[in-house]
Amino acid sequence: MTTMPDQPDLVALLERVGRLEDEAAISRLVASYGPLVDAADADAVAALWAPEGTYDVEGWQMRSRADVHAMVCSPEHRGLVEGGCTHFLGPAVVTLAGDAATAVCESLLVVHRDGRFVVARAGANRFEMERSADGWQIVRRTTHALDGSLAGRGLLGIDR
Amino acid sequence: MTTMPDQPDLVALLERVGRLEDEAAISRLVASYGPLVDAADADAVAALWAPEGTYDVEGWQMRSRADVHAMVCSPEHRGLVEGGCTHFLGPAVVTLAGDAATAVCESLLVVHRDGRFVVARAGANRFEMERSADGWQIVRRTTHALDGSLAGRGLLGIDR
Amino acid sequence: MTTMPDQPDLVALLERVGRLEDEAAISRLVASYGPLVDAADADAVAALWAPEGTYDVEGWQMRSRADVHAMVCSPEHRGLVEGGCTHFLGPAVVTLAGDAATAVCESLLVVHRDGRFVVARAGANRFEMERSADGWQIVRRTTHALDGSLAGRGLLGIDR
Repeated sequence: MTTMPDQPDLVALLERVGRLEDEAAISRLVASYGPLVDAADADAVAALWAPEGTYDVEGWQMRSRADVHAMVCSPEHRGLVEGGCTHFLGPAVVTLAGDAATAVCESLLVVHRDGRFVVARAGANRFEMERSADGWQIVRRTTHALDGSLAGRGLLGIDR
Repeated sequence: MTTMPDQPDLVALLERVGRLEDEAAISRLVASYGPLVDAADADAVAALWAPEGTYDVEGWQMRSRADVHAMVCSPEHRGLVEGGCTHFLGPAVVTLAGDAATAVCESLLVVHRDGRFVVARAGANRFEMERSADGWQIVRRTTHALDGSLAGRGLLGIDR
Repeated sequence: MTTMPDQPDLVALLERVGRLEDEAAISRLVASYGPLVDAADADAVAALWAPEGTYDVEGWQMRSRADVHAMVCSPEHRGLVEGGCTHFLGPAVVTLAGDAATAVCESLLVVHRDGRFVVARAGANRFEMERSADGWQIVRRTTHALDGSLAGRGLLGIDR
């Protein structure tokens, strides 16, 4: 004979598994950015954002998925990709809050220049995510160089 | 009195937990490569591959676990390790498909040269994995420099 | 009618979920170090360690949480942060052993110097963790440059 667990235990277990799945999905989304943007896959990069999601990076202010798509197709980005570039994002520190989440990570932009590879920028990244009918999406991303400025360092706080 | 969940719910929950375990195991396998190869632990590196697994990197074509072992023991690799090197792989983007999976990540090879550390190569990596009686193993890995070539950029597509 | 699973199955499932949660918590802790130390958040960095936890890095021997706090507040570290620095840690390879665990990863220290970003050091990191009433904490961390020395390479072994 076996004793059955109480239903509340199973509800709690389902919630725990759901949180692990959410964290894994968000980590995967952040880890996808570099490969997709370095492949210049504008559709796939744009799809990481919510339709009205934003991305602020070094004075470039994108205000929609369409803006992100345009960035990937821009001559500036195409030039980087065709010369050789790596948007290398570190492991994301994800903090869930129900149907919202934040993710923080650092990043290196490595570019191939004159036959060598150089670190063109080290950066701080803060993502705000929301759960949608299509899964987790970026609603706001802010990236700034870690050049000693408070703007960069200020993005590195981790929610608890 | 408690209401018991249906058995199908528990089957689904077991599957969900199994997927999380598979993704974690594959991520850990990819994350292990750098530390193990930089420690020149040829046995442990080779064991990441299936016996007939392959590894193509920059014109070096390995066709078995034994070939991978020989690469780690080669004078070229030993020279890198003894001078100081870091095969720095980013977080893997894992896509499961039952008993097979792919993992994509970018990587930096940093070498210690003349008392300084330089990025010798930025690369794209695509792993094809299979589940074996001994756990997940690499059946095919392809790595290419992100130097602007289509060969590198072409490895960065993420399966959905 | 549904057949109920045996209680032992559920105990095993709870253990599996607990292991996934432990691995995720430890990975997150390691991933937090870089952002927190580059933000010079001494309280948050120190809280990653156990009260008597140690950190040995390049001849700097910290023997308590208070020592780690003092390192983050030191003129040397403040100088790095104010000039611009990134302690970029790769994905951790976590090995659980009940209420203890190890985590191994490689790292790059990138500093902003004369308007450029340079890799000042590539390193090997080994963390020993313990579960406490406040969650997982670092009881011992050792970091050494990957400069070809055995001291660096010796930290890269992965527990199985």
